[in-house]
Amino acid sequence: MKALLLVTSSARDVDFYYATKFWVEDPAIFIQTGKKKILALSQYEAGRAKKEAEVGEIIDIQAYSKKKRLKNPSMIKIVSSLLQDLKIAKIVVPSDFNYQLGKDLEKQGFVLEVKNPVFPGRLTKSKAEIKCIVAVQRKMEEVLSEALEIIKKSRIKGKLLYYQGEILTSEEIRRFINSELLKRDCMPVKDTITSSSDQACDVHFFGSGPLKANSAIIIDIFPRSLKTKYWSDMTRTVVKGKASPELKKLYNTVLAGQKKALAIVKAGVSGAEIDKIIRDFFIKEGYQTKEIKGKMQGFVHGTGHGVGLDIHEEPRIHQENRILLKAGNVITVEPGLYYLGLGGVRIEDTVAVTEEGCLNLAKFPKQLLEL
Amino acid sequence: MKALLLVTSSARDVDFYYATKFWVEDPAIFIQTGKKKILALSQYEAGRAKKEAEVGEIIDIQAYSKKKRLKNPSMIKIVSSLLQDLKIAKIVVPSDFNYQLGKDLEKQGFVLEVKNPVFPGRLTKSKAEIKCIVAVQRKMEEVLSEALEIIKKSRIKGKLLYYQGEILTSEEIRRFINSELLKRDCMPVKDTITSSSDQACDVHFFGSGPLKANSAIIIDIFPRSLKTKYWSDMTRTVVKGKASPELKKLYNTVLAGQKKALAIVKAGVSGAEIDKIIRDFFIKEGYQTKEIKGKMQGFVHGTGHGVGLDIHEEPRIHQENRILLKAGNVITVEPGLYYLGLGGVRIEDTVAVTEEGCLNLAKFPKQLLEL
Repeated sequence: MKALLLVTSSARDVDFYYATKFWVEDPAIFIQTGKKKILALSQYEAGRAKKEAEVGEIIDIQAYSKKKRLKNPSMIKIVSSLLQDLKIAKIVVPSDFNYQLGKDLEKQGFVLEVKNPVFPGRLTKSKAEIKCIVAVQRKMEEVLSEALEIIKKSRIKGKLLYYQGEILTSEEIRRFINSELLKRDCMPVKDTITSSSDQACDVHFFGSGPLKANSAIIIDIFPRSLKTKYWSDMTRTVVKGKASPELKKLYNTVLAGQKKALAIVKAGVSGAEIDKIIRDFFIKEGYQTKEIKGKMQGFVHGTGHGVGLDIHEEPRIHQENRILLKAGNVITVEPGLYYLGLGGVRIEDTVAVTEEGCLNLAKFPKQLLEL
Repeated sequence: MKALLLVTSSARDVDFYYATKFWVEDPAIFIQTGKKKILALSQYEAGRAKKEAEVGEIIDIQAYSKKKRLKNPSMIKIVSSLLQDLKIAKIVVPSDFNYQLGKDLEKQGFVLEVKNPVFPGRLTKSKAEIKCIVAVQRKMEEVLSEALEIIKKSRIKGKLLYYQGEILTSEEIRRFINSELLKRDCMPVKDTITSSSDQACDVHFFGSGPLKANSAIIIDIFPRSLKTKYWSDMTRTVVKGKASPELKKLYNTVLAGQKKALAIVKAGVSGAEIDKIIRDFFIKEGYQTKEIKGKMQGFVHGTGHGVGLDIHEEPRIHQENRILLKAGNVITVEPGLYYLGLGGVRIEDTVAVTEEGCLNLAKFPKQLLEL
């Protein structure tokens, strides 16, 4: 007999949550043979699991070890005993399975086969799953509106912004957004990007210090629902004060690029095609992507990624991904252009792929806001 | 030549952060040979890494692959090329190393050796590290004070609490705590427990619905500093209204048990000894730990765990851990007693182990607060 085996936690591996619909922070065991799903976990979790987990059988590891007379049972002892009970010889595991445990299982004669992804079905979302993502999206939009209100109410003195007498910083806006997200049961697990001016050209930098007047402020929000565990992802770029003609042109080019991409998103199109349409358009408009003064500038990242129980999942929307999109994929489309001296602009929506096109889950305005 | 190899992210494995002092969300490569530390990562991260990472050499994977003419390089291609450059044949990896990558490296002739823990030094904290934990602790205490103020100001009607005209719930207090933590740059990554009455007997349940008057309310806070990445952990149990004599006795027994344990914590004592002193005391006082009506009741969990860059790390303070504490270990001491009908009480402090005893990092009152 063959079985799928996961030994991890929902916190560490969303596949574990997807398989069991149970949130557990400590390592637990999931075994699936055919349609039979078994969840083995600590006695402290067994009660809660009986109420919440969507599996056929729940095993209390302490009670099981006692019954089986396993002394000071290590994970390998418990796992191999469970597999033997089920007469399983061949095990399917994810590629990031625990190396030591894998080797120990092999030593005991089990045959391991890596499957990646473990649950391809996770990447095509049901209507109910899309509803979960939309719920997060709406809350993010409320919070972003409130954050922009603060930037709007701030006053420009020199190059800086002042709000309620204090210099307005990236940190302050980030704190506000994170705190408001949490009030809405959305956790900014991987934080929120609020960066302005040249800082935004380091696309993985969260932003720090005073926000700059008359320059682009990128706000990238990507929280997870504490309830449903689904994420959503949105970026807007705004200006406090006046955007220069160059910045306006940069903004409108990114927006036009995003529109072109959104227009071709549908089942049967590849991530590479979507990425290319933007990349070609930017070049046509005169925006090169290349190393300038020792730093990559232009469209320096891929176009997007899947969103669901994980914030970055397949399908990736970049130059090398030739796999065709399927209806039910939920992806981001987030082109950006970044040039030192001019700053960065990124516009990002999360959209659900359909047979005919895509459903934009974001309802937040995209014209350039000069607040 | 032999080298330590990590292929993961700081978000997924705190050892990666410990080794590099660099926060990276996407998979990256860390190689250490002797004192030489090398960090290989995406071109998007290389710039930030040059400023922030505490390593000897930073390799931009894209530039490296181009130089080495690796086409569409997979992780295994990049890793094995890097190892070959360094003339490394033997690799030390953590037990939870990626199974597929481990097998692929073996196929290419590398010899793998598992080391666990990878950095034993992580468990004995420097003064600077303890300072980071204390900083989180102080912020938690501020927030807890404010949360208790809300409970204090609420009014009892029947069995429920009303605050500003609304029924006060576990969710409401949790949202308040989480949101206030974030304002202080502390992320409640794994959420906050606010549960009252019988709900608190499910020790891994976060609590939901109306808080109950005249019954024990457990508040367990464990955020991570967004800046330093260190955690702290504290639990207090309070009552809104009046505690019954039985509940008072339960509370005072838990508190006395904790005091007994704290009195013996020092370098050279084992987790098992600390756990036993509490367990024996509870039994002496007439509080049994056993299954009652199909549910484990009493002191149903271990006494504590290490705290640092991870919220639950070694040394574990429980019946089976005979390893002796060392000066610099930072641990929680968190006995609890839980009985359906009476509710649950848990009192938890995070303390730093010294040669002579321990330094309690918590400064929050521990007498029973009837608010």
